[in-house]
Amino acid sequence: MIAAAGAASGAVAAAAYFSSRKDASTQTSISTTTTTTVSSPSRTAPFPPVPGAPATATRPAPCPVDPAGLFQYGFPGPVCDLRPASALISSFDRRTRNPFWVAEHITPASLATKNGDRRHSSFVEDDSIPEMFRARLNDYHRSGYDRGHQVPAADAKWSQQATDETFALSNMCPQVGDGFNRDYWAHVEDFCRRLTNSYPSVRIVTGPLYLPRRDRDGKWRVSYEVIGNPPNVAVPTHFYKVIFAEDGRTGGNVAMGAFVLPNAPIANDKPLTDFEVPVEAVERASGLEFASKLPVQRKKRLCQEINCSILVREYADRQRNLQGSPVKKGLSPPS
Amino acid sequence: MIAAAGAASGAVAAAAYFSSRKDASTQTSISTTTTTTVSSPSRTAPFPPVPGAPATATRPAPCPVDPAGLFQYGFPGPVCDLRPASALISSFDRRTRNPFWVAEHITPASLATKNGDRRHSSFVEDDSIPEMFRARLNDYHRSGYDRGHQVPAADAKWSQQATDETFALSNMCPQVGDGFNRDYWAHVEDFCRRLTNSYPSVRIVTGPLYLPRRDRDGKWRVSYEVIGNPPNVAVPTHFYKVIFAEDGRTGGNVAMGAFVLPNAPIANDKPLTDFEVPVEAVERASGLEFASKLPVQRKKRLCQEINCSILVREYADRQRNLQGSPVKKGLSPPS
Repeated sequence: MIAAAGAASGAVAAAAYFSSRKDASTQTSISTTTTTTVSSPSRTAPFPPVPGAPATATRPAPCPVDPAGLFQYGFPGPVCDLRPASALISSFDRRTRNPFWVAEHITPASLATKNGDRRHSSFVEDDSIPEMFRARLNDYHRSGYDRGHQVPAADAKWSQQATDETFALSNMCPQVGDGFNRDYWAHVEDFCRRLTNSYPSVRIVTGPLYLPRRDRDGKWRVSYEVIGNPPNVAVPTHFYKVIFAEDGRTGGNVAMGAFVLPNAPIANDKPLTDFEVPVEAVERASGLEFASKLPVQRKKRLCQEINCSILVREYADRQRNLQGSPVKKGLSPPS
Repeated sequence: MIAAAGAASGAVAAAAYFSSRKDASTQTSISTTTTTTVSSPSRTAPFPPVPGAPATATRPAPCPVDPAGLFQYGFPGPVCDLRPASALISSFDRRTRNPFWVAEHITPASLATKNGDRRHSSFVEDDSIPEMFRARLNDYHRSGYDRGHQVPAADAKWSQQATDETFALSNMCPQVGDGFNRDYWAHVEDFCRRLTNSYPSVRIVTGPLYLPRRDRDGKWRVSYEVIGNPPNVAVPTHFYKVIFAEDGRTGGNVAMGAFVLPNAPIANDKPLTDFEVPVEAVERASGLEFASKLPVQRKKRLCQEINCSILVREYADRQRNLQGSPVKKGLSPPS
């Protein structure tokens, strides 16, 4: 009941949040610098330019302190545990114990090869992550949430090892089961797979979001449950998928689509396009960047090229049996 | 009123959260790997060992996909914008628009040199961070929260440039003003400075936390406001300080203390030791690591070496004027 209410208002909140981002579409080029472990340096003049330093500053005084000397005790991080596997690559958020993102790659050939079977796989903790920061099997036990694959097992059937890889908890987030993970979200995963009917190579990045919603007092608040005893794994409010559908040519076109769905039951008759957002909206909400190196002339909009819709077979069949009833837009098969 | 209620229950929640972490003290050694930008590699066998891969796996099948090929479009991040300045060094969280941590270094000499004056400084946005992820002056405007320095301006008076550096918004978090930033938190900052009476070199790492609290339904939830219009900067539920008090010898002892305070009014008669936590508790809550390279035999406990207490001058004076009234433990001057 609470979850159901959350679905509707979650979508509304997300829409309001994104639509209020007026300048989202004007932001295209972003510098990318990356944190690396830095050993304790001896500080030497001149200092790098820093915000807050007036342009007219006189020659800097000798520095009596060495803040970076802290690193002799270890770099604080954050470490974003990169996990390169054969079926996926991911980065882990040690604070929420969920991934930041999990990236996969599917092709018509990879989906056609079926050597893996999820019945032979089991959920495992990711022991490449220090125990203190790891999601645990016990955290999910009796939590009421599914261990929700970010890269679906069904996308990695080309070998048993690939299927198994998707069962590490670093590829999971707590997801609402009925009406979401086992229903609408599964249809979205199916939509992604069906893209290989139109594109020879499809990349999908999936991950959690923790979005604010507007309370009755007019203030925006982020609020999410943390499962486990003691509490350990955050329950995301939403999930995103950023899709790169490639035309197969080197330097060719890339049709991009981004979707944000609330972690809550969603009715099957809700059009997938209701959840489409600008890629920049996912970037702002997640703090990540998805296409900083993709030239704008190669970038196309997925839902302008193909029909972005889920396909709910049982429901569609039932619709067809109703004489004269038109197939609803959101349920029509993709072109 | 809400904030005041939050103070009490916030402290209780934090205490419950930390005390329930039974295995905190047993975790000492943690591997540190760091995310770096990775250019799109051609995938070559053999694959690195991954969780989920059975130990008895047969020779891996040829890999039909290349998940890391995503990086041709840019590495998703997260980028943790490292800001090396003369008075501080910090890492920025692009999702919450607050720092992950800000580190400083103070000595008796650095505090004795007073060439900087905060009246000549002004708050500035940190233009080293892409606009999309930056905290903005407008976000704080009429938010009801102070722009709370993580490294205090008073710790960087040794040059005007150093003082100015502390006014960049990447050194700020939204803090409750009355009863916290302007009161108890300021006394804690003063406590840190007074440590230079006992130690020749003191390092302080300060940052925000977003801690869960137990709701009436028994579930743990993280809940925090996001200020700005559109919402942009998270309001932390708590703040931490991790202190390294060095004895001045190369390879010498380091007295460590960690404190977690709710972002809410705190009464001045509350002992500072009420907020002391194991360093590991801050690590679990923040996802960071603070002393992974400090040998355990060099590590001492700060509050066993000195009296960890704040000094509220006006209040202490008033206490002294009350005949026969004993000075309360929490207000006694440090040894």
